Amino acid sequence: MTPEQTLDLLLQANLLKTMPRTGWLIRGIVQPESVAEHSYGVAFLSLVLAQAVEEAIDREKLLSIALLHDLPESHITDIPYPALRFITPQAKRTAEERALEDIPGSLGDEFRQLWLDFEDRRTPEGRLVRDADRLELLIQAYIYEQSTGNRRLGEFWDNTDPTHFEYAASREIFALLCRQREKERKP
Amino acid sequence: MTPEQTLDLLLQANLLKTMPRTGWLIRGIVQPESVAEHSYGVAFLSLVLAQAVEEAIDREKLLSIALLHDLPESHITDIPYPALRFITPQAKRTAEERALEDIPGSLGDEFRQLWLDFEDRRTPEGRLVRDADRLELLIQAYIYEQSTGNRRLGEFWDNTDPTHFEYAASREIFALLCRQREKERKP
Amino acid sequence: MTPEQTLDLLLQANLLKTMPRTGWLIRGIVQPESVAEHSYGVAFLSLVLAQAVEEAIDREKLLSIALLHDLPESHITDIPYPALRFITPQAKRTAEERALEDIPGSLGDEFRQLWLDFEDRRTPEGRLVRDADRLELLIQAYIYEQSTGNRRLGEFWDNTDPTHFEYAASREIFALLCRQREKERKP
Amino acid sequence: MTPEQTLDLLLQANLLKTMPRTGWLIRGIVQPESVAEHSYGVAFLSLVLAQAVEEAIDREKLLSIALLHDLPESHITDIPYPALRFITPQAKRTAEERALEDIPGSLGDEFRQLWLDFEDRRTPEGRLVRDADRLELLIQAYIYEQSTGNRRLGEFWDNTDPTHFEYAASREIFALLCRQREKERKP
Amino acid sequence: MTPEQTLDLLLQANLLKTMPRTGWLIRGIVQPESVAEHSYGVAFLSLVLAQAVEEAIDREKLLSIALLHDLPESHITDIPYPALRFITPQAKRTAEERALEDIPGSLGDEFRQLWLDFEDRRTPEGRLVRDADRLELLIQAYIYEQSTGNRRLGEFWDNTDPTHFEYAASREIFALLCRQREKERKP
Amino acid sequence: MTPEQTLDLLLQANLLKTMPRTGWLIRGIVQPESVAEHSYGVAFLSLVLAQAVEEAIDREKLLSIALLHDLPESHITDIPYPALRFITPQAKRTAEERALEDIPGSLGDEFRQLWLDFEDRRTPEGRLVRDADRLELLIQAYIYEQSTGNRRLGEFWDNTDPTHFEYAASREIFALLCRQREKERKP
Repeated sequence: MTPEQTLDLLLQANLLKTMPRTGWLIRGIVQPESVAEHSYGVAFLSLVLAQAVEEAIDREKLLSIALLHDLPESHITDIPYPALRFITPQAKRTAEERALEDIPGSLGDEFRQLWLDFEDRRTPEGRLVRDADRLELLIQAYIYEQSTGNRRLGEFWDNTDPTHFEYAASREIFALLCRQREKERKP
Repeated sequence: MTPEQTLDLLLQANLLKTMPRTGWLIRGIVQPESVAEHSYGVAFLSLVLAQAVEEAIDREKLLSIALLHDLPESHITDIPYPALRFITPQAKRTAEERALEDIPGSLGDEFRQLWLDFEDRRTPEGRLVRDADRLELLIQAYIYEQSTGNRRLGEFWDNTDPTHFEYAASREIFALLCRQREKERKP
Repeated sequence: MTPEQTLDLLLQANLLKTMPRTGWLIRGIVQPESVAEHSYGVAFLSLVLAQAVEEAIDREKLLSIALLHDLPESHITDIPYPALRFITPQAKRTAEERALEDIPGSLGDEFRQLWLDFEDRRTPEGRLVRDADRLELLIQAYIYEQSTGNRRLGEFWDNTDPTHFEYAASREIFALLCRQREKERKP
Repeated sequence: MTPEQTLDLLLQANLLKTMPRTGWLIRGIVQPESVAEHSYGVAFLSLVLAQAVEEAIDREKLLSIALLHDLPESHITDIPYPALRFITPQAKRTAEERALEDIPGSLGDEFRQLWLDFEDRRTPEGRLVRDADRLELLIQAYIYEQSTGNRRLGEFWDNTDPTHFEYAASREIFALLCRQREKERKP
Repeated sequence: MTPEQTLDLLLQANLLKTMPRTGWLIRGIVQPESVAEHSYGVAFLSLVLAQAVEEAIDREKLLSIALLHDLPESHITDIPYPALRFITPQAKRTAEERALEDIPGSLGDEFRQLWLDFEDRRTPEGRLVRDADRLELLIQAYIYEQSTGNRRLGEFWDNTDPTHFEYAASREIFALLCRQREKERKP
Repeated sequence: MTPEQTLDLLLQANLLKTMPRTGWLIRGIVQPESVAEHSYGVAFLSLVLAQAVEEAIDREKLLSIALLHDLPESHITDIPYPALRFITPQAKRTAEERALEDIPGSLGDEFRQLWLDFEDRRTPEGRLVRDADRLELLIQAYIYEQSTGNRRLGEFWDNTDPTHFEYAASREIFALLCRQREKERKP
């Protein structure tokens, strides 16, 4: 990549700081986290999980996947889950792939391969970032429930069970989080 | 529609208050207007333009179109223009049509017909709301330029010329707005 | 109106986007809806109610009233209900009428007549917008209760009973909303 | 005052933290200062000015006036200057006096007297707080111009000249502020 | 002080409007009050308490202390209580003293003495502002609990008992506030 | 680490989403980025720079350093540069080291070593993250200048020259960014 292309890519990625996570918006969370904040959480969580996971994990790949897995949203915005009744998941996926094709040269090629690892759960690293992605969502939901009194986040918990997580280490934190949430919900 | 369906529709439309206009977000406007605020502006502008337009206009239709033309965004969010390089305009349109099909009964049928008036510029009323939609965008851009010092909104002006407007009354206000903007931009 | 007067009016109405609804502010709702967002809600709700109401309704008038009923607040701001102990309702009303007199020509005349329809409940359309105005307030209160845990909105419910609504269709949605609120408030 | 009355007064004054200064809102300043923040600025500025003023000043009175001069806005909200074309200044003043009458006992009496010192420029302390009130406005306008690029604050400067200030110390800071503003406005 | 030094001090104090109270931030309060808003509350509360306190109080000193007790935070920011495990309280105190030494001339000397009255509880006025500082925190905590549903503010109540307050008038309001909180917490 | 310790660490890191970057706050940027958003930017920039750098870089180490280099700010908050006149840089550094010692077990040991790589510029990876840290700051400053009209960010540019960057790839992007900024600043 030329420096011009590099700077373009950096300015593009910076847009993730301005993109709100729409799943929170439609449930009435005021000034919710940005996609960049979520991506930071996923990457940090991946770094911590890697330590706890027994399987061999290539951490370079792992962290790279975590940092770029939502990069297409800098172009497309964060289309929330309920919208997929109207925009097909396939249309969304195609759009995300095209957005990655915008990145020139070998870095673009590398990013697309890493993104497919995540999207198609192709590699242990891709699968661990998926675990981190879901766990980070739940940690944030837990924090919002504690700090805003929002009563519309129950479905995130109802729709998650241990089988959603690939790794035992993820399941262990998920179980602990559920227990802590239950304990604090009692009046 | 049953009262339950009516209440569902009202709660759905309420989401437009929480949807930011993403075109402003990606250009760095902090806490930009919501889609509901824009829709209010379009509807009010339509009401005012109707008075100034020489052609016969059915105001009931006109205001109805204005109030619902962005309703699908309550499901789909406001996907910004640059994203259409990746999500095809056709995919977006199909999604919006499907979102309107969610509204049951004769009101749903009526809404879809009015939305097509706007989308396909089928009727004088649909075309006048399109004028109002663009003019409202430019008025807001003018206000943001005046009040935030944002230097990234030039393209809205560069990409608009009098031929974008169907009605002489719209062109007249557009011309006046351009003059006022030019005058105030001088140091 | 000259184009200059028209643009002035549009810029004035745009201020409704920046006016917070102060009734929420004083009860601790952070970043509450703007008057423009509320007006959008009232207009959309009027459009939907018109379909459900059995009486003959002139929708052109109805939507026009809904779109302009809070226009004076663009000059005067949204003076909250508890302030009327100190600013007399008559002083507020006079101020609002004067603000409408600021609009020149026949549009100003028309707006004042429509506003009086609303203010004095003079016409079926004015009365239906009043129903919509109150219902919209309660829908928003319901959403804030669900999403922010605010415990200071009870008085809106305590101070409303079916006799506040003119139309059976409004009462039906009000009753349903109350039931839904009660159901969700149980721990 | 009973403890209950005292707590009521404190909760009432706390509302000043949630009241935006509407003069900034209507000029497009995003998330402008609250009345409480402005009042803090006025009180601190009064404290500093008292040191620089040659005349004898009762600082206890001075700071008390500064802290309560906007207290009625906790009931009435901050009605912006342009609204006084519609709400008469007399109606506003009467409302503010009535709001102070809400405070029971001798503290209420004392507050009303101090407020009249300010409102009617009756005492040296009241006049110094008026100087501070205007100077604080201009300091904030200067900061907003520097930090937001807003081009709509010019009238605050155009409408102020040295004769608006009672004390030489105020005029000196005003003159300095104007010079600093001019210097920084040059491209 | 020269006018230049005075203006510098005023611009410095203005920064308190932009400093969030970090104790609220880390507990998930969105857009919490600024230090300036808190300082306003403390000064107003001091003014009201002075009336209720039986001991002789120099109100000029009292209000001056209240207005400047958090002034060092304009340089240092509001370092929250839990951070004192890492930054020693001594290091924080030294930093605050140094920040006050930045203020030139006799006003600087006076401010430092008043600040020590507060910091070291040296005088009746310093001790009353400490009461007001804590009471203001609890009033704000009470308001946030009522209006946001935040469940993380319990420790402020758990860690406060009547012995924290020096004056009977403070204890009386504290006791009343606790009762009111308890009553409203019942479902 | 036990799952309890892991969850504690994740909740601690989540606080970075709520910590504003205070350097922007004191210059009047409204709702500035959080530390988490900045950290995301630094990590993504490191990933991209690694590709452009000719020297051998251990990307696993690189991305780990980027993700944790501001972790102590979750305890201590983001103490802005001008505050270091009062809190000594040594006191700040000691506080940050102590905050990292809070993390138990081998992960804590590893994090401290990586943090020292950054803090003391001990390794190529630590030095590249330092480059990314500064470059990210400037990219954000550039975006804020473009989108908010803030005129107080000049010192970031004045205080940076090519010798601040260790790697040629960083200098190249820095130079390009400066050119682009200059070009767009011309009226």
